[in-house]
Amino acid sequence: MRKEYLMTAGPTPVPEKVRVAEAQPIIYHRAKEHREIFKRVSENLKSIFKTQNTVLTFTSSGTGAMEGAVVNTLSAGDKVLVVRGGKFSERWSEICVAYGIEVDNIDVEWGDIAAPGLVKEYLDKEPGIRAFFSTLCETSTGTLFPIKEYGELIKGRDNTIFVVDAISGLGACDIEVDKWGVDICVCGSQKALMLPPGLGFASVSEKAWGLVGSSRLPKFYFNFEKARSSLEKGDTPFTPAISLIIAMDASLKLLGEEGIGEILERHSLLASATRAGVQALGLELFSKYPANTVTAIKVPEGIDGSKLIDVLFYKYGVKVAGGQSQLKGKIFRIAHLGYMGQFDVIIAITATELALKDMGYGVEIGAGVKAAEEVLAG
Amino acid sequence: MRKEYLMTAGPTPVPEKVRVAEAQPIIYHRAKEHREIFKRVSENLKSIFKTQNTVLTFTSSGTGAMEGAVVNTLSAGDKVLVVRGGKFSERWSEICVAYGIEVDNIDVEWGDIAAPGLVKEYLDKEPGIRAFFSTLCETSTGTLFPIKEYGELIKGRDNTIFVVDAISGLGACDIEVDKWGVDICVCGSQKALMLPPGLGFASVSEKAWGLVGSSRLPKFYFNFEKARSSLEKGDTPFTPAISLIIAMDASLKLLGEEGIGEILERHSLLASATRAGVQALGLELFSKYPANTVTAIKVPEGIDGSKLIDVLFYKYGVKVAGGQSQLKGKIFRIAHLGYMGQFDVIIAITATELALKDMGYGVEIGAGVKAAEEVLAG
Repeated sequence: MRKEYLMTAGPTPVPEKVRVAEAQPIIYHRAKEHREIFKRVSENLKSIFKTQNTVLTFTSSGTGAMEGAVVNTLSAGDKVLVVRGGKFSERWSEICVAYGIEVDNIDVEWGDIAAPGLVKEYLDKEPGIRAFFSTLCETSTGTLFPIKEYGELIKGRDNTIFVVDAISGLGACDIEVDKWGVDICVCGSQKALMLPPGLGFASVSEKAWGLVGSSRLPKFYFNFEKARSSLEKGDTPFTPAISLIIAMDASLKLLGEEGIGEILERHSLLASATRAGVQALGLELFSKYPANTVTAIKVPEGIDGSKLIDVLFYKYGVKVAGGQSQLKGKIFRIAHLGYMGQFDVIIAITATELALKDMGYGVEIGAGVKAAEEVLAG
Repeated sequence: MRKEYLMTAGPTPVPEKVRVAEAQPIIYHRAKEHREIFKRVSENLKSIFKTQNTVLTFTSSGTGAMEGAVVNTLSAGDKVLVVRGGKFSERWSEICVAYGIEVDNIDVEWGDIAAPGLVKEYLDKEPGIRAFFSTLCETSTGTLFPIKEYGELIKGRDNTIFVVDAISGLGACDIEVDKWGVDICVCGSQKALMLPPGLGFASVSEKAWGLVGSSRLPKFYFNFEKARSSLEKGDTPFTPAISLIIAMDASLKLLGEEGIGEILERHSLLASATRAGVQALGLELFSKYPANTVTAIKVPEGIDGSKLIDVLFYKYGVKVAGGQSQLKGKIFRIAHLGYMGQFDVIIAITATELALKDMGYGVEIGAGVKAAEEVLAG
């Protein structure tokens, strides 16, 4: 018997109550019963986003909602700025390029962030920038970007919107959409919202809606206007992933009971404990600005990174992710995101100790767990 | 106690075994375990499509896959032909127009089809047509279009592809993608595949792949090339709706055990019994070419169509759909699609009898059920 523990930064574990809700008999979406649920979840999402803006829901991965953010606000030939420091922040550039948008990138080393001063310098030099794109938590490196500081830079600029991919971060790392001036905030279901993948979200500010009217890029499935006018009636333009909407009603109830403040504190505590645990084993964090969603850890010298992932899963049942692209084999990433409690951290650190010992890495058994527990004990 | 019966033409009921599979703990998609499942379902879909072509899976409604069919094969300014006879066939035109494609429509009365001769005449006159779009089963009117005959018209034309929306029809009404020369066949999960909504599919022929290379429309989320190259590794370009993929593995197992031939016969039998049942009550079918997915029935004179739908659901628990757009209040539609057996037809007809009697329509109690049962008895 080998119990399994999903500790990837998306998908994340889905609570039993939510899975049972997901498995209920399907109901018809063009009827009062579903409309009431869809209106309720769309309202309840706002407290997680910390916004009064409309939050649109699409049946797609988060990437679909990212594409929506681009095609609904921009036109071919527009100039935009993207901060890139990992696999996911590169996606903004890729989408924009696919749609004929002129993209300037501020590239930083993976694991690092772009200093707000650098972004300000660029924006001052290029006042024609139509949109500035960033990522809240760059999952590929476990790095938190300074969204609040970036937001301050955009606030005075009437012709520029601020668009944030908060897919893996929202609900785990603080983001205050309204206070920080995030015009479009994109999220996905399979992270802190404790749902299976399949839903993408976008909150849209009045400033961003202003651009929607003048955007000339073609769009259909991810049309924001259509989604908004349908939502007013509790509807969606096309058949939604009904079982995921029903599941979301259950997960938002759980999140609402805990409260967004407590949720963020829990993620902060679990992240601190995880960092303390791995560091007590002599391991190094990869990121210069570690996020509270996932801890990226350098694979120690002499250890085969892919094999470590396999030992953790096939011997100990703990599923963590490795590095992507240029980080393949060089890091492993332990998520503490979503439906996660203190004992999940203990499991992750224990498994890391055991697997490293199996592979011949000099590890003092129990040292990591002790350090993690000390953080949890407060 | 009021038991509920979902009898809409999408979503359709999901078998208990499939819902239990959907509710299993989430697994990581970038791992062998999920790749094996995704490869298997992608293979197994082919027998339902009756094709050797690659079948791509997108996390979206069927409409997303329809958009994919357009943006991956065409370029702005291309000329296409669409046959329209209902709400869903109009969608092909809407998508094409949104992308700057020149659309000619053959419009037929709702409930009717376009005669193949008419289509041939048009195609002969306009050899530059890049794609011909049709719908297998027009769900809004319960009408079956002559896809086989249309396919024959396209076979000799090297510069024209044949694209079919088989979202509600596939697996209920026969369609032989390869034999009939369907270049792109689009489907959705929430119909005959007995799944919740959230997955869209597209099979793509070699002829259609030929156009993919030259298409200049912008695309990202629904990029066919990316989806195909990922699928070769059992992967998807973006996080898929994992719980729905797992559910699909279970539903395709059930469908495989029954066999596509038997599935189509079952749908044919249930449709015949439903038609016989309602006609025995003196009701009229709306469609001139009734499909085996859903039976559209004219609301009899003097009866309030919206109220009938409400009585059926709130008093008897039977959820059927009404008419859409110009048919609102004028028809009601009983689906016999997907996870449906003979007793579902009996329930639908019995509820119709009882509801009509409640509303003062002169109905001989038991007459419809008797007629339906006679068909079922063979």
